[in-house]
Amino acid sequence: MIFSHRLRVRYGECDPQGIVFNANYLLYVDVAFTEFWRHALGPWQDMVERGVDVVVAETNLRFHSPARFDDEIDVRVRIDRLGESSITTEMDIARGEDVLVAIRVRHVCVAAGADGGPGLPENVTSTPLPDWVRAGLEPFVAPAQIG
Amino acid sequence: MIFSHRLRVRYGECDPQGIVFNANYLLYVDVAFTEFWRHALGPWQDMVERGVDVVVAETNLRFHSPARFDDEIDVRVRIDRLGESSITTEMDIARGEDVLVAIRVRHVCVAAGADGGPGLPENVTSTPLPDWVRAGLEPFVAPAQIG
Amino acid sequence: MIFSHRLRVRYGECDPQGIVFNANYLLYVDVAFTEFWRHALGPWQDMVERGVDVVVAETNLRFHSPARFDDEIDVRVRIDRLGESSITTEMDIARGEDVLVAIRVRHVCVAAGADGGPGLPENVTSTPLPDWVRAGLEPFVAPAQIG
Amino acid sequence: MIFSHRLRVRYGECDPQGIVFNANYLLYVDVAFTEFWRHALGPWQDMVERGVDVVVAETNLRFHSPARFDDEIDVRVRIDRLGESSITTEMDIARGEDVLVAIRVRHVCVAAGADGGPGLPENVTSTPLPDWVRAGLEPFVAPAQIG
Repeated sequence: MIFSHRLRVRYGECDPQGIVFNANYLLYVDVAFTEFWRHALGPWQDMVERGVDVVVAETNLRFHSPARFDDEIDVRVRIDRLGESSITTEMDIARGEDVLVAIRVRHVCVAAGADGGPGLPENVTSTPLPDWVRAGLEPFVAPAQIG
Repeated sequence: MIFSHRLRVRYGECDPQGIVFNANYLLYVDVAFTEFWRHALGPWQDMVERGVDVVVAETNLRFHSPARFDDEIDVRVRIDRLGESSITTEMDIARGEDVLVAIRVRHVCVAAGADGGPGLPENVTSTPLPDWVRAGLEPFVAPAQIG
Repeated sequence: MIFSHRLRVRYGECDPQGIVFNANYLLYVDVAFTEFWRHALGPWQDMVERGVDVVVAETNLRFHSPARFDDEIDVRVRIDRLGESSITTEMDIARGEDVLVAIRVRHVCVAAGADGGPGLPENVTSTPLPDWVRAGLEPFVAPAQIG
Repeated sequence: MIFSHRLRVRYGECDPQGIVFNANYLLYVDVAFTEFWRHALGPWQDMVERGVDVVVAETNLRFHSPARFDDEIDVRVRIDRLGESSITTEMDIARGEDVLVAIRVRHVCVAAGADGGPGLPENVTSTPLPDWVRAGLEPFVAPAQIG
């Protein structure tokens, strides 16, 4: 299953070339992952209150074509792999049929209040994904590609 | 040769976890690359006026540990590879001895005014790196690692 | 008539106090004014292509109460005064019944391509609001308050 | 006494008009006020650890002329009025002799951990400025203008 979230590009997110400034695609990634989480599991904050947090450990972005002011774009999300304590997500940002940016993000599960942030803070170790998280995400795991 | 640029983390760049919001590391990458360019080749805008622009084609960020409000951090830049029309840069963001984020960025050279942006816009092809750009960057190419 | 635009607060817009960083309210102002313009007059870019641009000359923000991550907030827009070449807008940002921020913005009309920006650039003078802009905005001019 | 802090405009802070996006001037205000505080009183975080925080209650910005990518700009800070629990600051942002933006900010002192944010949060009342804060700021209070 693929989750998709539509955004409209804001003027202040664009740079002097008239296109979205590259850092802002990670902002879109964050917004889309929050909405994906709401759809699959409920509000992000509920998870934190249950004692678990999920932090970004790695991101890879390949820029194919720029988005522009006022464009409506779709951020599409599918899980590539659910590990013991990590979630690897494939996303892309598209305008209509055109894929503008291809994205891969690895999140890691940590104890909430462990002062998690992007990546693992000092002295914080990852914790296994709780069953209820795993169950909510499983429908979005893409089947392995067949040769 | 390694180029290093020091920044102080701004309050508005930090998120509710008290640490730098992940997208803002790409903002630091952009600031550091601009200062690196000034050091190696002069102001960015001078290049554009000479008819060449350099756009981001791919970024990879691995988050090890977070930076916090008011931290002084160093963005260190070295070139990994100068291709025919591309520049692959290794950066890291460190606080003192600690590497917080490891970064790899691939830039591509395009004709200025070709409406370049992050990645190659439609109908825009890359152009070879001009000799004066290549000459200015060569001192920063790291020697190949030996077994 | 009052125009209202709903937004959801993004994680990256919040600061270490867990609330929207103050500068980002001006980002919301910009988004809401763009959507107001679309509703009253059509896409912003169409105006620019007709040779007119509208730039921010002054903003006043009074912060009453903070918005938080994941809040749904409404930016409400009404015109206070249409001058010869200026538009004075009253906005507020509310969560449900609670007004969080009270805002006053003065825009000025300039020739497009005159390199307008926030405020009047050097050597650029304001131009009268075109009739079609005035006609589209008039329904949103709030009637004078009666003693 | 006037405090001044120099900044270089970042590419990602500029918009498609090639100038600083208006919200980002409030980011500069925050950076400059933090540096002013460090100069007058020490690191912001030290104040918070002493149980006091200072939140933005009102801002007024008048835009005269835009700043552009790579400009070096000075944010100049002087106190206009120290109230019982509030600080009214006049700032301007200048490029060389040219004042680009004139700014007035009112901060209010609250108990730290009172979940202060921009403006007074619900159920939070202001507290008097501690003597050590007042003493540190007094040298920066501009004398009253004479006729």
